Amino acid sequence: MASLTKGMSFNNPEVIKFLDEAYRLIKEEALQKGTSRDYPVLEFMHPHELESTLDLEITAEPASHEQILDAMKNIIRYSIKTGHPRFHNQLFGSLDPYSQAGAWLASSLNANIHTYEVCPVFIIMEKYFFQKILNIVGFEHGDGVFCPGGSASNFFSIHLARFKKFPEAKKNGLFGSAPFRCYASEDGHYSMQKAAIFLGLGMNNLVGVKTDGRGHIIPSELERCIKADLDKGYTPLMVTATSGTTVLGSYDDLPAISKVCKKYDLWLHADACWGGGALLSKKHRHLLKGSHLCNSMSWNFHKMTGVPVQTSVFLINDPSKKLLEEANSAKAEYLFQPDKHYDTSYDVGDKTVQCGRAVDITKVWLQWRALGDEGMEARIDRGFENARYLTQKLRSTEGFRLVLPEFECTNVSFWYIPHRLRGQVEDNKWWQELHKIAPKLKERMVKAGNLMIQYQPLSTKGFVNFFRIIILNPLCGPRDMDFVIEEFERLGKDL
Amino acid sequence: MASLTKGMSFNNPEVIKFLDEAYRLIKEEALQKGTSRDYPVLEFMHPHELESTLDLEITAEPASHEQILDAMKNIIRYSIKTGHPRFHNQLFGSLDPYSQAGAWLASSLNANIHTYEVCPVFIIMEKYFFQKILNIVGFEHGDGVFCPGGSASNFFSIHLARFKKFPEAKKNGLFGSAPFRCYASEDGHYSMQKAAIFLGLGMNNLVGVKTDGRGHIIPSELERCIKADLDKGYTPLMVTATSGTTVLGSYDDLPAISKVCKKYDLWLHADACWGGGALLSKKHRHLLKGSHLCNSMSWNFHKMTGVPVQTSVFLINDPSKKLLEEANSAKAEYLFQPDKHYDTSYDVGDKTVQCGRAVDITKVWLQWRALGDEGMEARIDRGFENARYLTQKLRSTEGFRLVLPEFECTNVSFWYIPHRLRGQVEDNKWWQELHKIAPKLKERMVKAGNLMIQYQPLSTKGFVNFFRIIILNPLCGPRDMDFVIEEFERLGKDL
Ligand SMILES: Cc1ncc(COP(=O)(O)O)c(C=O)c1O
Ligand SMILES: Cc1ncc(COP(=O)(O)O)c(C=O)c1O
Repeated sequence: MASLTKGMSFNNPEVIKFLDEAYRLIKEEALQKGTSRDYPVLEFMHPHELESTLDLEITAEPASHEQILDAMKNIIRYSIKTGHPRFHNQLFGSLDPYSQAGAWLASSLNANIHTYEVCPVFIIMEKYFFQKILNIVGFEHGDGVFCPGGSASNFFSIHLARFKKFPEAKKNGLFGSAPFRCYASEDGHYSMQKAAIFLGLGMNNLVGVKTDGRGHIIPSELERCIKADLDKGYTPLMVTATSGTTVLGSYDDLPAISKVCKKYDLWLHADACWGGGALLSKKHRHLLKGSHLCNSMSWNFHKMTGVPVQTSVFLINDPSKKLLEEANSAKAEYLFQPDKHYDTSYDVGDKTVQCGRAVDITKVWLQWRALGDEGMEARIDRGFENARYLTQKLRSTEGFRLVLPEFECTNVSFWYIPHRLRGQVEDNKWWQELHKIAPKLKERMVKAGNLMIQYQPLSTKGFVNFFRIIILNPLCGPRDMDFVIEEFERLGKDL
Repeated sequence: MASLTKGMSFNNPEVIKFLDEAYRLIKEEALQKGTSRDYPVLEFMHPHELESTLDLEITAEPASHEQILDAMKNIIRYSIKTGHPRFHNQLFGSLDPYSQAGAWLASSLNANIHTYEVCPVFIIMEKYFFQKILNIVGFEHGDGVFCPGGSASNFFSIHLARFKKFPEAKKNGLFGSAPFRCYASEDGHYSMQKAAIFLGLGMNNLVGVKTDGRGHIIPSELERCIKADLDKGYTPLMVTATSGTTVLGSYDDLPAISKVCKKYDLWLHADACWGGGALLSKKHRHLLKGSHLCNSMSWNFHKMTGVPVQTSVFLINDPSKKLLEEANSAKAEYLFQPDKHYDTSYDVGDKTVQCGRAVDITKVWLQWRALGDEGMEARIDRGFENARYLTQKLRSTEGFRLVLPEFECTNVSFWYIPHRLRGQVEDNKWWQELHKIAPKLKERMVKAGNLMIQYQPLSTKGFVNFFRIIILNPLCGPRDMDFVIEEFERLGKDL
């Protein structure tokens, strides 16, 4: 056993040699090659092929360092290079050197943020950070908490709205209440649906409000839904506005929605998980005009801002600064002892529903500290510039058709029309044919390995399968945008 | 702007130089010194002192690499060294070189696990891993999902039990139902309380079942509570047994509790967040005898097993393998397209309530692969050996008194009695005096910086403040246990 536990010590030179090699491997293969245009975005394999290619078996005996490094090499090889300038598949991606250093630092300190006693530095860091972003959002006397993902942050919005309106639900639950109703854009993110399920409201009590042709909640429709529910004896609770929708990138009109919320005394939550990054840019922050009117906001720094998954905050506009604590506290006596020798108001753990919590703050603070406000702004502006450039180019290139005349955010959606379908009558059959093009083109794209862009239909708008390119990597420039168009033509023209 | 985005590229030699230095700093300061007995566990500062010592300001301009490295150095300096062999404060800790490499790998790939398309390797790795641990637990045809912490895993138990019994709650919520009642040990973890709040049941609908003198649920008490609730027209839903309680480390009697659950058709969840690690040891797995009888289990690999925070699984005993999917799916059309070119049964994202999810699997798989079953077992056995050694020594050393005659797990609780209180009549006043000793001793301990052990009262047992030492670091041996006793005497004798 002594020899086995020797392998766990950082004072063993063999272990240090392993770590040095692991670092070199990660740096060269994942970070350098993984973000270089000279290497592929992916090497596709079907699940069963990959299962037999990867050697994932855990054996009774320890593995040699060589075996572990080999395994790491294979893991990197067959993983998608989400930091690659041609990975545009998802609302996250790009790799930032400083947030990487922050992520390694966080895991190497294995910090766990609930009490000041075990996590002093990061509690102070969170406090500083929340002050900064609350100011940016316009929540003058707010509070915040990191959540494990934007979905979890959105869950918090229902939770807090419910507690604010019906504090007794904390003790007695929802049994016997008239159904609480939540409203969100029909183009909003599905996490609100999951929130309604998980929090015991049920998905039927999340009302999808109709959007206009550009994907914005229609305020009069919202009011119509609320009134209809009041007539039925339901209890309207909250509205989620989306600041940057998942597919079309639309920003809801916060002042108009806030008016409706005020009229009916409803909580207003802004889901800015995707589009919140625009707040960091003087040029684009107008997209979230009225953010200060909201009661809460969720904002993912792992999306537009490029911090590693997951780095998500839930912010609350609450001058009392007590709502999070009151809604969540359970006052566990083994953790939050009142007779500690320091100021226990720094023990922040009871403000959330997690017990242990990783210090996601480290990643975003270190990146922001390194880049400065200017660097963060440059990142965001670069994404918008690239998106505007590509939109313009798609608009004027034969065979491409934009799904909307223009896009507010940096996700750009379009159909690719292969040669045989160009210039035809665009009847139902034509669209059904076009619907089948995207999966086929995507298959070719993935097998070529040079580019990754997602396709999907959008049934709320009756759109057949189209491509949605996400542009957020600051390493991208016009030639990467041009590449997208060339690659579609190369891969798709004979489809 | 070009110069700003240059700082974000891994092909910039300056950036690489920064990363190399960041790696060296983390290795030397956090990992090597941070786990060495020649360096302190902590350097304590009060919150306001630390606030003025740390330079956390984010400026408009970018910071120099030197400034960033300086900031990292200070972050490390003032953070608690949770991997240090004398950090015994919490149910997590110790640092494993291989799980560290896994954590860095995960962040450097910035993988996000929901669809096979963007996360092929880790989906296959999770599948392999769940098969392995389901076998260990005895869930022959089960399924599993990683959750962001043990609290979240416990939340899942109510969620799944509710869905199994009342699938219509997914659509309609809890409104109008008779209250669902959950039962857990009065010594169980507070996350079940938070679960009841968050999921809309309300904390009054979580019933704390009385435990015996050793901290185990009394099965006849459980049955009494269920019957009383049935009489009141409530709907008993589920029972949480704890396999290793947070404070006393007690393992509930799973077969006996299972009998009661079967009789009343209740879901049985085992909260093995803390004590689950014993399953990896042939010598100690008997503590979880009957685990195969449960419907679900939560198990934190970031606790006894030493993987970085957070690495937690929720396991379900469900031969249909459909329950997770049915309870959680929202079938977002932008993510889970049915017309993909590969087998979409590998798109696992709709089995959980998260959308983006970090690949925690990487940390535990890499560690386990490196150590082998034997190394993992050695870790666990080492913890139990140290705990047994210390318990024996505390029992026979003047001035120490065990809180229970013996402990099942590797958390050991005791009172320290300073010289002036020894040999006195132990009346109420004496105990009240003893109650005040722990906070004072803790303050001295923290200021000395050589040791970290938590104290707390336990009101369910009427215990005044006592110390609870958590023993899980495989680098610890008898001399570290001896050190604890010496240090208490040194710090506390004149209190
Ligand atoms: C028995 C038990 N269950 C659950 C938890 C919660 O785990 P986490 O901190 O990962 O949320 C703990 C934490 O200490 C625990 O001791
Ligand atoms: C608008 C919006 N809200 C919330 C989320 C959920 O974020 P997460 O994946 O971090 O749970 C997403 C994810 O894409 C999103 O687009």
